[in-house]
Amino acid sequence: MKEETTKTQVTVLGLGAMGAALASALLAAGHPVTVWNRSKRPVPQGAVRASTVSAAIEASPVVLACLLDHRSVYDALGPSAAALRGKALVNVTSGTPGHARSLAAWALEREIDYLDGGIMAVPPMIGGPGAFVLYSGSEAVFDAYRPVLDTLADSRFLGADPGMASLQDIALLSAMYGQFMGILHAFALVGSAGVPATEFAPMLSGWLTAMGGFVAEAASQIDKRDYSIDVVSNLAMQAAGYPHLLEAAVEQGVSPALLAPLEPLLNQRLADGHGAEAITGVIELLGEQK
Amino acid sequence: MKEETTKTQVTVLGLGAMGAALASALLAAGHPVTVWNRSKRPVPQGAVRASTVSAAIEASPVVLACLLDHRSVYDALGPSAAALRGKALVNVTSGTPGHARSLAAWALEREIDYLDGGIMAVPPMIGGPGAFVLYSGSEAVFDAYRPVLDTLADSRFLGADPGMASLQDIALLSAMYGQFMGILHAFALVGSAGVPATEFAPMLSGWLTAMGGFVAEAASQIDKRDYSIDVVSNLAMQAAGYPHLLEAAVEQGVSPALLAPLEPLLNQRLADGHGAEAITGVIELLGEQK
Repeated sequence: MKEETTKTQVTVLGLGAMGAALASALLAAGHPVTVWNRSKRPVPQGAVRASTVSAAIEASPVVLACLLDHRSVYDALGPSAAALRGKALVNVTSGTPGHARSLAAWALEREIDYLDGGIMAVPPMIGGPGAFVLYSGSEAVFDAYRPVLDTLADSRFLGADPGMASLQDIALLSAMYGQFMGILHAFALVGSAGVPATEFAPMLSGWLTAMGGFVAEAASQIDKRDYSIDVVSNLAMQAAGYPHLLEAAVEQGVSPALLAPLEPLLNQRLADGHGAEAITGVIELLGEQK
Repeated sequence: MKEETTKTQVTVLGLGAMGAALASALLAAGHPVTVWNRSKRPVPQGAVRASTVSAAIEASPVVLACLLDHRSVYDALGPSAAALRGKALVNVTSGTPGHARSLAAWALEREIDYLDGGIMAVPPMIGGPGAFVLYSGSEAVFDAYRPVLDTLADSRFLGADPGMASLQDIALLSAMYGQFMGILHAFALVGSAGVPATEFAPMLSGWLTAMGGFVAEAASQIDKRDYSIDVVSNLAMQAAGYPHLLEAAVEQGVSPALLAPLEPLLNQRLADGHGAEAITGVIELLGEQK
């Protein structure tokens, strides 16, 4: 049985690696695509190139912006804001929550329906399994164009705050970079003693997977703001052992720079009388939780 | 069918949470245990307390030391070194690879067979599933007492270098702390916008599991010392996006301290001409790989 699906004309602004991947996925799903980019990069097969931003916008009811950065979005859309009036703007350009909120305010003033998106995938993953995009801002846009958005990746709507998609995108990337920092430091340590990384990797993978239980454990402590529950290893013991980690790196000729910033936070919590609690309480020193 | 198993008399020095857990696991497996500790903590049921270190050592062919720190090991064993001559010393006290190597040299001079151990578990996990202990140093000790060691946790021998167990122990812990730092930063970010940690946790867990593929990917690049293979997302793009992560934290009132040290390393690799390669190459800036 073949299902009848509605095809939607979509405009894609920006043909960097990600913009091109988005356009290709839309085309592969049968949606007609009009593209524009500043530097006249090659157009994905089947897409129509518009010579100006305004012409590109006029071609479609929904505009997907995937540009270099926040400033590029203003530079591209600013002069063509009138053409966008009454249309849907889905901005997946990387930026901060503040960037997204300011662009949403700009769009609101111009009667443009704004949906912000944070793409949790690298370009080759677009249109395939495992990719997902976080959205926030206009739920009307999300609902109206959901079938289009779903051809790119798994779509998740996070609410009306236009900064929320970017915030959770950045939170996920931040956690990933912390994981990368720990992994690179660990490989540097064993490498300093001549242990091949591929020999150490299976144990490291298994260990990190086992330690991944910290996410759920910490979440429950954070929400209750009670770091004395489910304490697996208390902060006092971790603060006592942490200097060994940094010393061992120095002994082996490895820079302790990536791990160093946690030490003063452990010591601060200890000094504040939280030695018997879980390490999770360090979050109280990072910023105010609302 | 009941198997006949040999029981071995074991001495445990130190009755902190970990020492007590080790003694209890040995007792539960039917091994007679003699214990000593400096501060006369309660003795696990079934263990025999020795009043001096020498008396404790004399009771058994194998001595398991689980003390506060490196200095405590010397303080406890130094005056009783003669009693240890010809016996097996298994030291699982936390310390650096340098500590382990220096203690091994001390033991060698005194004709004591030295095995160093790094316990990858918290005390409640001892004797149960999931716990493992890394050993290095005397393979003869490891082989002779393997049945005893296996009652504590899964035992893994890493070779003759007495510092290797501690090094890999510390490498695993370092990777774990990197993961913790990223997770705490991520929760602080979403918490600053009022998102409950338990609401964000499932997505964070899934994401970190998906990103765990970095371990194997990075290991293969590191061993080939070729960071231009299997580049999923290049360093230039990551260096361009990284400031957004730090900015977003500042925007939200969250300290960027935990993630900050990676930024100069990304910029250094970019300046050195490695923008088209993988982020893994950052390891070259951490220390010399042998």
